[in-house]
Amino acid sequence: MNRAKLMVAASGRNSDLRYAVKFSAPDEFVFIEIGGRREIVVSALEYDRARSEAAHGVKVRALSEFSGNDHLSVIMELAAEHGIKEFLVPSDFAIGLGDELRRRGLSVTPEGGLFFPEREYKVPVEMDEVRRGIRVAEAGMRRAFQVLAESEIMNSGALYWAGMPLTSEILRTEIVLEFVRHNASADSTIVAGGLQSAQPHSEGYGQLYAGCPIVMDLFPRLNDSGYWGDLTRTVVKGKAPDIVRRAFDAVLFARDEAKRRLKSGVVPSEVHNFVTDYLAGAGFPTGCDNTGNYGFFHGLGHGLGLDIHEEPRVNSRNHEPLKGGEVVTVEPGVYYPQWGGIRLEDVVVIGEEESICLTEIETFLEI
Amino acid sequence: MNRAKLMVAASGRNSDLRYAVKFSAPDEFVFIEIGGRREIVVSALEYDRARSEAAHGVKVRALSEFSGNDHLSVIMELAAEHGIKEFLVPSDFAIGLGDELRRRGLSVTPEGGLFFPEREYKVPVEMDEVRRGIRVAEAGMRRAFQVLAESEIMNSGALYWAGMPLTSEILRTEIVLEFVRHNASADSTIVAGGLQSAQPHSEGYGQLYAGCPIVMDLFPRLNDSGYWGDLTRTVVKGKAPDIVRRAFDAVLFARDEAKRRLKSGVVPSEVHNFVTDYLAGAGFPTGCDNTGNYGFFHGLGHGLGLDIHEEPRVNSRNHEPLKGGEVVTVEPGVYYPQWGGIRLEDVVVIGEEESICLTEIETFLEI
Repeated sequence: MNRAKLMVAASGRNSDLRYAVKFSAPDEFVFIEIGGRREIVVSALEYDRARSEAAHGVKVRALSEFSGNDHLSVIMELAAEHGIKEFLVPSDFAIGLGDELRRRGLSVTPEGGLFFPEREYKVPVEMDEVRRGIRVAEAGMRRAFQVLAESEIMNSGALYWAGMPLTSEILRTEIVLEFVRHNASADSTIVAGGLQSAQPHSEGYGQLYAGCPIVMDLFPRLNDSGYWGDLTRTVVKGKAPDIVRRAFDAVLFARDEAKRRLKSGVVPSEVHNFVTDYLAGAGFPTGCDNTGNYGFFHGLGHGLGLDIHEEPRVNSRNHEPLKGGEVVTVEPGVYYPQWGGIRLEDVVVIGEEESICLTEIETFLEI
Repeated sequence: MNRAKLMVAASGRNSDLRYAVKFSAPDEFVFIEIGGRREIVVSALEYDRARSEAAHGVKVRALSEFSGNDHLSVIMELAAEHGIKEFLVPSDFAIGLGDELRRRGLSVTPEGGLFFPEREYKVPVEMDEVRRGIRVAEAGMRRAFQVLAESEIMNSGALYWAGMPLTSEILRTEIVLEFVRHNASADSTIVAGGLQSAQPHSEGYGQLYAGCPIVMDLFPRLNDSGYWGDLTRTVVKGKAPDIVRRAFDAVLFARDEAKRRLKSGVVPSEVHNFVTDYLAGAGFPTGCDNTGNYGFFHGLGHGLGLDIHEEPRVNSRNHEPLKGGEVVTVEPGVYYPQWGGIRLEDVVVIGEEESICLTEIETFLEI
């Protein structure tokens, strides 16, 4: 027993640590796992709460038990106590602290892959949490649909709601208020209209207009458990131009066909490449010119859990077959600077014969 | 010019990187600074937005310019291009990537202190952002005061509001809705009543009661700039017990005397220790027994900016005199398992002759 797993992080921000101890703290603390036994060393500020909230089997120790009160000396004391000679750390472990431990004669080995490989495969209680996250995202999306349905179209094409011009900011606020009512939060919510929708990560700002796409990508995080929801819809207020309708139909087909193909044993890159090719065949090619990138230039999806983006990636670079139990987004999109973008996103649990879709809200274009 | 600063992080989560580029991205990207010139390498997904949003003087480069598309190969190409032999990295740089760079013959040196030491000293535009953050926290606090003022006290002492028993969860939601209306977010908001208030980091849950302290520690983050506000008040609905009143008076005096003492040239630990001693003399000693910690067992304050907790710390371990321009919280508190806790928090800018208080909302006990 001279090898231990080691993390030093704030579990409120580090999902590996939160996964291991099921306890969210805003400040960094030391975690070790040796011979399957887990220990954490927390400050006076967190001690009582950690004792009541940390996962069963996690030994909670007070910083005051140790003679030093910085992370380095706590770790050195733990190493001496347990006879640890080598620490296995996550690849994102702080190099400053790692170098200090090495200078003191300990071996520090970054883990090449996931620190807890099992995080990639969700147990039922985790699937339920992601499902709850998606329900919250859907509540926000329904609120957005309601606001857009209630909006009027001015002669200029500008949308008008509740006595005011309707902007991305106002619509975003209405969505996030709904998240808060469901005890979830979101620091970033995409409501991008018109040509802004051509930039997949643009949050969106300013007046919203009829007749052009409004991409809404909502990713609330549950305040209690820390799991995320993720949901994207694209709608047009009023009548959609022909090119937007055709892009919508192509992306919708691609999403649903990708959902059908994603199951245990399937290689993610093949499904991603199918989508790229299908979209190109439907008249929506991917490429780059002097105006920038166009077409489908992001991954088809990503794992979803305690991190909004986690393993496995569903993109052109992941050639590892799915095993079942992964929870992934399926979110094809096309983006053109001439008219904007369309993205449609559902979430599935990878199954043996087929995948189960956790997303329930309908997909439509015109509102 | 063979030495460069290097960061690889998501600026939406890493405040050093956000500070350097003034651009918030959800995914990791590579940053280097060589000879005072800054470059970032971003994916297609972020390229257009980075070009329009990144700070003046930051050169934005596309990942597609490079032959590899992982961070390691991008960094190796940058090193070759600029003739870099040594990278200076933040102490929290990922050890996995650092080890890979070292294996390829590059020197990787973690910075012992702050990566951008100037972050500790706020320029006026940053002070304004923190002030805005505090204004949002105050809006949330006023909403809480309003709800508590409107609440009725049942025969059992339980509070009742808007036709329902008033819980920590409901009061928290009302506060956070106010944050959202101000384009700010909070993933953690403390509303801890009764004995829960004796645990400084307890978020609080369940029924709220008259006649016992309710600690409200609000820290919203501005969605646009990423700066934080921080504000704590403790109130009692109805009449406060004598011990709670005495603790409140002692903590209020300690806070205001600490604010008066904190200025350029002053040693933070001396002010922290003054508060500990003053509170003990007022009948509120600090210590630890078989029930856990009691008294004043956290730091007096912390720097506030793009991180909710940053340098400088105002605690018993920081012996470095203040220099002026720091923005710090001043938040003494006392906590006893017998009756709960009191914490009162304002924020000041450290000045030459005196500090300027950014917090405006009043401090009172009974509501």
